[in-house]
Amino acid sequence: MSAFDEFVAPYGLVSKVDAFGYLDYLETHPEERTKRGKVVLVTADTPLKASRGEGKTTTTIALIDALRERGVDAAAVLRQPSMGITAAGSKGGASGGGKSSLAHPELVDWGLCGEMAAIENAQNLLVSFAEKAVDEGLLDQILVPRVSEVPSRALRQIVVDRGKSNIPERMVLTPTCELMQIVVLSRSMEEISRRVAAMTAGTLDGKPVLFGEFIDLWRITNMLADAVKPAMMTTQAGSPVYVHCGPFANVSLGIPSLVSVEMACARHDVVVVEAGYGADAGAQKWLDIAAREFGAPWPAAAVVVTRASTWRDEPALRWRYPFHVNRMEGLGIPAFPLVNLWEGEDGQVGELKESAAGLGLREPILGNLFRDGGEALASQLDALIAVLRPRQAGGRDEAPAEALRSHKGMDMVDQLRWIAASAYGVPAERVQAAPAFADSLANARALCHAEGRDLNDLVPVAVKSPATMTDDDSAPEAERTVTLKKMEVHTGAGLVQVNLTKSLTTPMPKIV
Amino acid sequence: MSAFDEFVAPYGLVSKVDAFGYLDYLETHPEERTKRGKVVLVTADTPLKASRGEGKTTTTIALIDALRERGVDAAAVLRQPSMGITAAGSKGGASGGGKSSLAHPELVDWGLCGEMAAIENAQNLLVSFAEKAVDEGLLDQILVPRVSEVPSRALRQIVVDRGKSNIPERMVLTPTCELMQIVVLSRSMEEISRRVAAMTAGTLDGKPVLFGEFIDLWRITNMLADAVKPAMMTTQAGSPVYVHCGPFANVSLGIPSLVSVEMACARHDVVVVEAGYGADAGAQKWLDIAAREFGAPWPAAAVVVTRASTWRDEPALRWRYPFHVNRMEGLGIPAFPLVNLWEGEDGQVGELKESAAGLGLREPILGNLFRDGGEALASQLDALIAVLRPRQAGGRDEAPAEALRSHKGMDMVDQLRWIAASAYGVPAERVQAAPAFADSLANARALCHAEGRDLNDLVPVAVKSPATMTDDDSAPEAERTVTLKKMEVHTGAGLVQVNLTKSLTTPMPKIV
Repeated sequence: MSAFDEFVAPYGLVSKVDAFGYLDYLETHPEERTKRGKVVLVTADTPLKASRGEGKTTTTIALIDALRERGVDAAAVLRQPSMGITAAGSKGGASGGGKSSLAHPELVDWGLCGEMAAIENAQNLLVSFAEKAVDEGLLDQILVPRVSEVPSRALRQIVVDRGKSNIPERMVLTPTCELMQIVVLSRSMEEISRRVAAMTAGTLDGKPVLFGEFIDLWRITNMLADAVKPAMMTTQAGSPVYVHCGPFANVSLGIPSLVSVEMACARHDVVVVEAGYGADAGAQKWLDIAAREFGAPWPAAAVVVTRASTWRDEPALRWRYPFHVNRMEGLGIPAFPLVNLWEGEDGQVGELKESAAGLGLREPILGNLFRDGGEALASQLDALIAVLRPRQAGGRDEAPAEALRSHKGMDMVDQLRWIAASAYGVPAERVQAAPAFADSLANARALCHAEGRDLNDLVPVAVKSPATMTDDDSAPEAERTVTLKKMEVHTGAGLVQVNLTKSLTTPMPKIV
Repeated sequence: MSAFDEFVAPYGLVSKVDAFGYLDYLETHPEERTKRGKVVLVTADTPLKASRGEGKTTTTIALIDALRERGVDAAAVLRQPSMGITAAGSKGGASGGGKSSLAHPELVDWGLCGEMAAIENAQNLLVSFAEKAVDEGLLDQILVPRVSEVPSRALRQIVVDRGKSNIPERMVLTPTCELMQIVVLSRSMEEISRRVAAMTAGTLDGKPVLFGEFIDLWRITNMLADAVKPAMMTTQAGSPVYVHCGPFANVSLGIPSLVSVEMACARHDVVVVEAGYGADAGAQKWLDIAAREFGAPWPAAAVVVTRASTWRDEPALRWRYPFHVNRMEGLGIPAFPLVNLWEGEDGQVGELKESAAGLGLREPILGNLFRDGGEALASQLDALIAVLRPRQAGGRDEAPAEALRSHKGMDMVDQLRWIAASAYGVPAERVQAAPAFADSLANARALCHAEGRDLNDLVPVAVKSPATMTDDDSAPEAERTVTLKKMEVHTGAGLVQVNLTKSLTTPMPKIV
């Protein structure tokens, strides 16, 4: 039995891994031989609409099956789909499709081992504690929203205590809540506990009050005991897959937990990590938040998924796909175009290759992954495998030093301008503020100041529609703008949510 | 490996049992040798207040530990505590206490394997589907409440879609929702599916619309795939314990799932089943609903728990404890008083025995179960073990035929009068109706009629404060009344919720 096995327990048809325990064990047992896996980031073109995925999960699954067929010890780390999406049926499942599927996709689509529900209930319990604090005069305004794991547009704006105090509130989906962000970013239960204590519960006479001032933290950590453990499962072809934490990089982090990726890197040579929606959301958050600010591994390569139609059918939006690929290349990350062909698109291969060549992209990888699975890819991976040659030095030093230099302390608006320029292609002078933004910024700054911290030390999380990067992606390049709308601090997670362009703070998908 | 083992899978520190599959296997394999366990119902005195348990779980655990010490193959079936209670901290955990505890009590107290959360989310998804049906003109009023696993008094009455349609709604705790009742009562996933289809989603132009008319049932059953499986764990002394479904017999069923008890009876000689709060709630529901109307095993004995103080300190309420014990005896169920002593009460043993003798009760079993566990009881169980001698014939025919004759078809108000008389000691002429009751009854009758069913064929579930049986339990016997207040049909579960006396339809405990 390997050391790892002691941290694994079966949970019905899947296993769960005490990743905190395993990584702590590795830390204290430097003699233990581990792999130093390279991360391949699977991200995508900006989707034409929010409800349409390009096929990142399908690609991730096909890719590890193909890499393993080629003799590479590859594993995947996926995000658990939001029941808010799978239940709503608006976006299919998020467990791959066809031949590129997980074993037991129904488990992943319908709640896995209750991780999302536990995070939902733990944040809701925080709100209940805050209500008690209001009763006791410790708070007069609650700032943390309640959470629903099930989508319902009617819950976006609600009134609680109807007929008595009639308090307006809002509810958010589980993957977007601050507690989910804390689980994604934390490397121990102690860190979770510390971060929950640092969450801003609300205010009393305008002064912020933290949860740590009045709650029993053990109640929250007990609720999260199993939720913090990544699930371990396989593709239908038997390749190893870890699943942990939620999607929606357009409004939150939308990346798997850092520990799930780090654990996978200790166990496999290549770790394919899914981050989406598009590169402007998922890759931006992996690179600028996870890797730069929270020490996650820098990708050794990226695979940028698109569909034949997404890439080319909307002339005014054709700039987006090469923009994403080139941004990665500009950061020194070999970025491989991958076209996820649908039924009837086999004939377009030649044309798609020409388009890619015309744009100066690498040779694209193409295949009908639903129909053919990893077999469609195995013969096309020479170039990818070549850049994943065994590492000589540590991982993070492969990144340009500039890319890993923290932005903490930089003026928050400058940090946002930087994101607009680097991830959306809109220069600083065309980043504009909506009328309410100045107040929102001043309030956030004052709140942080009252807590003895600096807003500029929080890490900005862009909140926007998954289908747009700018106020109008169809406008000519020189006219594209980004509008800053409002911000909300998540002091426990160490983040500040900033609404941009077409925002969607409470993604409550319509049930279809 | 036994046949049973094939239906068991480890889930972290506990196991879960596919009870549906196992019971179906036994049904189709009559040659399989099974036990025909006798049920001992552990119930209690009516508590002095809702937030105070008498110690049923503690007793149940001590009792099986003691029975096993005496060589009896005993197991327990417990209800999973509501996180609404454990999180609120108002009633401690519900995993026993001290020496009479479960192994891993923290798992049971903080969400187990996500069963409650899955049921919560599945009913919430039903509400979301109903909202979609409203959008599509299939419904104009939703009758199913949303569910919260976390208690918050502010959620009892809410408004959703604030600022637009402003719809008043209410939320209920998971253990009290119709879907929980369906899981408690169903013996297969097909039965769950059929019952969910028969739930009344709402009305269109006053006419009822069932969920089966517009939803994908597989989404709901997929969400419940693990939630329908009882958890298998042990006491700290190693005795087997099955845990499944929720508490709160004062407002819902408050009993473990029927399949968890039936599975335990197939595997053990004695199965101790917990049902509470008091006997007026838990035992009434086990006997009159589970056993009489849904075929659950009739108890071979009862243990009626009280505390030294509950029993005697309120002179006006002293009638309740012997009333409960005598009701059981009157039904032919040997009912053993058990006094759960607290610290400092050891000296009262003689006096308590005298009180019991003076009331004509059986010799009470006494012990400080928190401090001493099963050891406190083992030497006192001769009389209980004697009545649990191996059964000669089938279980149900041990019950008086009258006790098992269904009340279905009896006029609903007569059914309620019968409960008031038999379970609360209030004769028919003192069962009165609140002004709004007649309308509520007529509406329920009309709704059932429009669905082609008869209200009288539903089984009534009394909804009341756990601390009272009548409008005033302190009144002299001849003055005690029961007031019928309103009713709400749960057509999927086959039940009708009837609010009596001091009702509490949405038990949202105050967080303390």
